[in-house]
Amino acid sequence: MIDERGSTGTRERIIKTGADIIHRKGFNNTGIKEILDEVGVPKGSFYFYFKNKEDFGLQVVDHFNRQFEGMTREMLENTSSPPLARLQRFFKWFMDFFTSAGFTCGCPVGNLSQEMADLSPAFREKLQEAIDRMADAYSTVLLEAREAGEVSPEMDVKETAYFIIAGWHGALIRMKVTKNIEPLENHYRFVFEHLLSK
Amino acid sequence: MIDERGSTGTRERIIKTGADIIHRKGFNNTGIKEILDEVGVPKGSFYFYFKNKEDFGLQVVDHFNRQFEGMTREMLENTSSPPLARLQRFFKWFMDFFTSAGFTCGCPVGNLSQEMADLSPAFREKLQEAIDRMADAYSTVLLEAREAGEVSPEMDVKETAYFIIAGWHGALIRMKVTKNIEPLENHYRFVFEHLLSK
Repeated sequence: MIDERGSTGTRERIIKTGADIIHRKGFNNTGIKEILDEVGVPKGSFYFYFKNKEDFGLQVVDHFNRQFEGMTREMLENTSSPPLARLQRFFKWFMDFFTSAGFTCGCPVGNLSQEMADLSPAFREKLQEAIDRMADAYSTVLLEAREAGEVSPEMDVKETAYFIIAGWHGALIRMKVTKNIEPLENHYRFVFEHLLSK
Repeated sequence: MIDERGSTGTRERIIKTGADIIHRKGFNNTGIKEILDEVGVPKGSFYFYFKNKEDFGLQVVDHFNRQFEGMTREMLENTSSPPLARLQRFFKWFMDFFTSAGFTCGCPVGNLSQEMADLSPAFREKLQEAIDRMADAYSTVLLEAREAGEVSPEMDVKETAYFIIAGWHGALIRMKVTKNIEPLENHYRFVFEHLLSK
């Protein structure tokens, strides 16, 4: 009988290590072997926990979803600050994060959407859901901002959320080639000085 | 002695076929062998024309640049229409294109930037240049729009061009997961009804 705590630990370590490597190198460019070598478990372990590489990749997307959910908690729950200030802090936090990361990697959900949506219907479906969840988080804050009179009362919060996400994903792409903060600053400026100004 | 016309033809066919496969599947996920099999030439041909896969990939980026340049010609040169109408036609053309393509692939320069910028300094540099060229094309039209009084006289055309490109790249990412036109329509609406309205 398998030690359940131990096995969950191994599964989680494979997912977390795999997620890090995939975030840096892409899904197709990451081999199962290099993940297992880094975790230090034999190949059999992988096929004990995952049906195949795609099944593993889908669980990595779940992992990225949970990570993003954790990141949005403060923005969604700490209602002691005004909504737009919380949204600004959220993006400022990401700008600091990518500065520390040397302007690499980008958004794992955006990356995998770009890479995998045409290649795997299962990935496509799961990534669509992941982007929709992001849009839900932003929509919630934008709705609060609208109700607080911080943005135009006519603003369609869902469409605006999707536009902000698209601009962010594109800014991250350009950040990867410029290797500086300017693309993210440009996004911030347009979102908060133009798009969300009344 | 090599027949120069013949050899150029082979080189061009390898680049064009490779570009199509890379556009669909990504760079790391495309094998040299499958390109050569589709073109119908032996492996030796590849290494006659290209130092290695990276050198080939960089020439594929040049190919995409030339393609994009061809696409912008009408927008930049047919000054019989007002600038914003030309920019609108440009995006409408792309929306029709991606509709015909079943909402697949996306922007090859955006895709390769996302995939390769962290993995190859040579790609990174060339792709940064490619995005800058795109921004130059949009900036030119936006400057004309500003001079024609179609947009705010305070608009920073270069920053606006980069923001439009980022939103477009992100919209194409979401288009790949939704498999419908809505993300591109959302981009169009925000760009032309909000961002570029006076």
